[in-house]
Amino acid sequence: MTSMTTTQPTRHHAGFVPVAPRSGTLRPLGGDQVRITDGFWARRQEVNGTRTLAHVRHWLEREGWLPNFDLAVAGGLAEGRRGREFSDSEVYKYLEALAWEIGRTGGDAHERELREVVARVAAAQEPDGYLGTAFGRPGQAPRWSDLEWGHELYCLGHLFQSAVARERTRPGADDGLLTIARRAADLVCEVFGADGIARVCGHAEVEVGLAELARVTDEPRYLEQAALFVERRGRGSLGQIEFGQQYFQDDVPVRDAEVLRGHAVRANYLAAGAVDVATDLGDDGLLEALTRQWGSTTARRTYVTGGQGSHHMDEAFGDDFVLPPDRAYSETCAGIASVMFSWRLLLAHGEARYADLIERTLYNVVATSPSSDGDAFYYANTLHQRVPGAPADPESASPRALSSLRAPWFDVSCCPPNVARTLAGLDALVATADGDGIQIHQYAGCTVDTTLDDGRRVSVRVETAYPADGRVRIVPLEDGDDAWTLSIRVPEWAAGAELAVTSGGDTSLLPAEPGYVAVRRRFRRGDAVELVLPMRPRVTRPDPRIDAVRGCVAVERGPEVLCLESVDLVEATGGPVDVAQALVDPASLDDTSGEVRIGVRTRAFEDRSWPYAGDGVPTRPGSTGDVRLVPYHSWAERGPSTMRVWMPVVDGA
Amino acid sequence: MTSMTTTQPTRHHAGFVPVAPRSGTLRPLGGDQVRITDGFWARRQEVNGTRTLAHVRHWLEREGWLPNFDLAVAGGLAEGRRGREFSDSEVYKYLEALAWEIGRTGGDAHERELREVVARVAAAQEPDGYLGTAFGRPGQAPRWSDLEWGHELYCLGHLFQSAVARERTRPGADDGLLTIARRAADLVCEVFGADGIARVCGHAEVEVGLAELARVTDEPRYLEQAALFVERRGRGSLGQIEFGQQYFQDDVPVRDAEVLRGHAVRANYLAAGAVDVATDLGDDGLLEALTRQWGSTTARRTYVTGGQGSHHMDEAFGDDFVLPPDRAYSETCAGIASVMFSWRLLLAHGEARYADLIERTLYNVVATSPSSDGDAFYYANTLHQRVPGAPADPESASPRALSSLRAPWFDVSCCPPNVARTLAGLDALVATADGDGIQIHQYAGCTVDTTLDDGRRVSVRVETAYPADGRVRIVPLEDGDDAWTLSIRVPEWAAGAELAVTSGGDTSLLPAEPGYVAVRRRFRRGDAVELVLPMRPRVTRPDPRIDAVRGCVAVERGPEVLCLESVDLVEATGGPVDVAQALVDPASLDDTSGEVRIGVRTRAFEDRSWPYAGDGVPTRPGSTGDVRLVPYHSWAERGPSTMRVWMPVVDGA
Repeated sequence: MTSMTTTQPTRHHAGFVPVAPRSGTLRPLGGDQVRITDGFWARRQEVNGTRTLAHVRHWLEREGWLPNFDLAVAGGLAEGRRGREFSDSEVYKYLEALAWEIGRTGGDAHERELREVVARVAAAQEPDGYLGTAFGRPGQAPRWSDLEWGHELYCLGHLFQSAVARERTRPGADDGLLTIARRAADLVCEVFGADGIARVCGHAEVEVGLAELARVTDEPRYLEQAALFVERRGRGSLGQIEFGQQYFQDDVPVRDAEVLRGHAVRANYLAAGAVDVATDLGDDGLLEALTRQWGSTTARRTYVTGGQGSHHMDEAFGDDFVLPPDRAYSETCAGIASVMFSWRLLLAHGEARYADLIERTLYNVVATSPSSDGDAFYYANTLHQRVPGAPADPESASPRALSSLRAPWFDVSCCPPNVARTLAGLDALVATADGDGIQIHQYAGCTVDTTLDDGRRVSVRVETAYPADGRVRIVPLEDGDDAWTLSIRVPEWAAGAELAVTSGGDTSLLPAEPGYVAVRRRFRRGDAVELVLPMRPRVTRPDPRIDAVRGCVAVERGPEVLCLESVDLVEATGGPVDVAQALVDPASLDDTSGEVRIGVRTRAFEDRSWPYAGDGVPTRPGSTGDVRLVPYHSWAERGPSTMRVWMPVVDGA
Repeated sequence: MTSMTTTQPTRHHAGFVPVAPRSGTLRPLGGDQVRITDGFWARRQEVNGTRTLAHVRHWLEREGWLPNFDLAVAGGLAEGRRGREFSDSEVYKYLEALAWEIGRTGGDAHERELREVVARVAAAQEPDGYLGTAFGRPGQAPRWSDLEWGHELYCLGHLFQSAVARERTRPGADDGLLTIARRAADLVCEVFGADGIARVCGHAEVEVGLAELARVTDEPRYLEQAALFVERRGRGSLGQIEFGQQYFQDDVPVRDAEVLRGHAVRANYLAAGAVDVATDLGDDGLLEALTRQWGSTTARRTYVTGGQGSHHMDEAFGDDFVLPPDRAYSETCAGIASVMFSWRLLLAHGEARYADLIERTLYNVVATSPSSDGDAFYYANTLHQRVPGAPADPESASPRALSSLRAPWFDVSCCPPNVARTLAGLDALVATADGDGIQIHQYAGCTVDTTLDDGRRVSVRVETAYPADGRVRIVPLEDGDDAWTLSIRVPEWAAGAELAVTSGGDTSLLPAEPGYVAVRRRFRRGDAVELVLPMRPRVTRPDPRIDAVRGCVAVERGPEVLCLESVDLVEATGGPVDVAQALVDPASLDDTSGEVRIGVRTRAFEDRSWPYAGDGVPTRPGSTGDVRLVPYHSWAERGPSTMRVWMPVVDGA
């Protein structure tokens, strides 16, 4: 057992991965090497592949966002175009989701879908490579005339990501997507190159797209262009807007910033692209700046769910410790973007804290957004629902952040296709390799089958019912000829975790400290390494600077943040009770019944004509009991309810 | 001493008042009958008249909002117009402020200003009466083509209010403003009448303007049109917008609503106009609905400052008890609109609670917005400033709600001229009359001189240093021939107030319960009625449903909410200390030094990589001391600071 060693930066073959840096500590293992086969995420992927993708396609057609491409060919775009400036990007995210899904399952129907959509997109590309339905045609604003809000480069960034996903899952496919992307990227380099327009897009994303496109095409100009965009940002090249320049991170140069700020999706996409630039150019100063920003953002501007962004107005980060639960924005896409940022830093540094935040965000933001049926979504993810609210209209697009129940589609519907591409590509976030072995970062029933750089074969199966159960068993599928190192992440929350190593019939039990535990040996069939994580529910208290949750606790179990839903409170107390009425006793937290339950006292409120008084506004005691807590990602699956993650405690508790 | 009696509805002569209902319990006394002469509000009025009005004029020219009217005449409006759709309204609010100021001081310079501006406005009016610089000319969108966001009727509502103010302060003035207003109002009645466009404006305001214009012109069509607009709202005549129909109160009919909701300025302007309609048409059902809405809004959706609106995104009310201090929006204009609504209900019902909320809002919202120099303003009024922030650029318009220090002007600059018109017309909110006497609602050094309906003369002087001091002394200026009733409001917070009545050399001391205390007698020179209000600072605790301030107290003194500013904390503890570090001991609140001071313990925070932990994130004890608290309206007058109204208490306090 050794602590994890880091390798020298080396060039890796890309494979079936969502990101393939040219240097770093860890090598990503893609969907061709890691297959999620069962359990929590397998079910989510199944629903995603069988329900969500079709759902997204349906709405893309219905809302006109895909037909916009047809209008570009047929004419009439200026009058007939539907959707916001960025609607093209949803089509590209859908294409990216299809690409991963085809790689994952090989489905012919998805392959036909992809080819049909690519053909419609291809037809809309202009002779010089420009692609975009919102600008540049007769009657429309000129190309690049509204960099602040036009999202043209943003959309192309998503196009590039879709082409990258396709090329990595079906290298050399004859559908033309990579060619479309290259033509558009060539135009971007021409227009925005060193001698071109010295500005950036109001919504970062093209950086990450270009950097990745450089990797699959070996075209250094794309990386150079991504680096140019990263360097240009923060220097005020974008115009003044109501939300201030920090909204699109044009306030401070990337390498000078101390923390993520402004629009949370923009900030994380930019950071992800900047890590790509830093790793591929060997720019240690830039990487260090981003690492510092990740640290301060995680420490001061992240919800307990992993969610980021506390402002509804500008979908933005608040000041440090401004993390109100009842006005949490925590946009689904910001969670996804944070995973993108964290994953890149994990590959760069190989430190468990990045995988910890990825796990937290996947379970409590990404998994919260879609319904269990995969056809309704949260755009914003509040941590406190005060009013039960009404179900969203299943037949129309909802306002993006007003839903108290999940909605089928939004007027700004970035989140559903973003969830789709993330779940379809999730296998690649499970494990990595380095020079001496593999690292298991996320626990899922899966197989990992890869070859190390020196030819040693690694083939294991991971067996687990996590997060229902805390045992994660890893068994070799082959008798190896050589020793290699199996590293397994131990989450920061898992104090007291143990590792049982079975070899040659003997089992030794070892403490497993948070970080990575590593076992180096010549693994043989019949051996097993079993991580046992403590899954007792935990009481969590906030930093006192998070004013909004003073006097409250949250409860977590494993990677899941739990919540109190009014439907459970009604059952526990036998009457109509709202979560506002509940005080909990942290000492009573218990799961011996098989459910997580906590002691609760309810109170009735006195309605005064003025809600402030010298002696406070008194309450009347109600009933006591104990109430079930459920995973936050499963909330609002039983009809309208009120809900809270942070629960006020009874006096003195 | 009797409880206040109510009179039958009767038609009053309007006079120099901001609102003149045709029925109600109390008759407003205008600026011709009440003159604020000294003290807190006199100083504010002085600064307003000498500094703020010129400041507003300067920026209206500079930003192009007044020159837009010239462009309308000269041509080029479609290309050259500056400002948002509603910028005309700022010119009209400025005119209204000038009108009150001219009435108040008779200043020739202001008279010239008004006439010049009216002339420029008049020139822009079209032959059919249409007035508006944002719509209807070649190259502009057609008139009334964007009722959701166009603000055309909203602007006209402010035009009508300016004409009403002018007519009431200079009846029959030959400047033409009333004619302009009438021509525009006639067009509105024609276009939006019973057989016209059956829709409303996205921003209520025309209702209150039309109802008041009906009063000064005796033109019933204007009132009918106001009533039509009130009845039409809430029935979905406006299109779907991202913020939902409640944003512009088009979700529920006015007479069915239970609480104010949506955009806080819109909601209060609408409510004020609806009260005008209800009182002038004798519509008791409508009045009852508005009275109910006022009650629930005050009880559940109002900050301790009187501020309303907790959402930055849509400048809107939150759900009940969503009143976060650090993201308080509490728009200055919402406070002004709330005063308008409350004042109308006070006239209708004669209940002290309306005057209580007016006082609270005047001292803690309206007085907070402008700097002591009258040339910088808050648009939003946060109750918790976490970051000192930088001074606003004195040479450019600021984003409306990003300033941590007051800014000279905003891109959406509704608040400065709204403050100006409110302060200029403030005399008329001090006192009213009924059939048997007068009522003093607000305490200010002033004279009140009026004649009751039956010809009895009432002439008194109010002497007070309030709120610095709690004594309010009212002395008759004449020997009366008849008895009449002097009623004085006793605020709800003033438990223990006393009334000293001096007559014929004898003084009797009487308890004064919150509400109105009334003294009926034949007053003679040498008599005096002195209200003595308890001005010891008070600890205030919130309703437990206001989650955001759990475990905190506020401190109030008289009508003023106090706050803790970091500059005082530095002085008290001798080092650089932020308000986040301070815990206060409510039991130590003291003002025997002549300042309000509270015991404070500071703490130092531990920076963790993750701000949540099972045992909480510990703090290290810092220093102890006592710190000065200052009136919230005076904060940020000593340079950048952090500030909080709600202060967390030390353990167990």
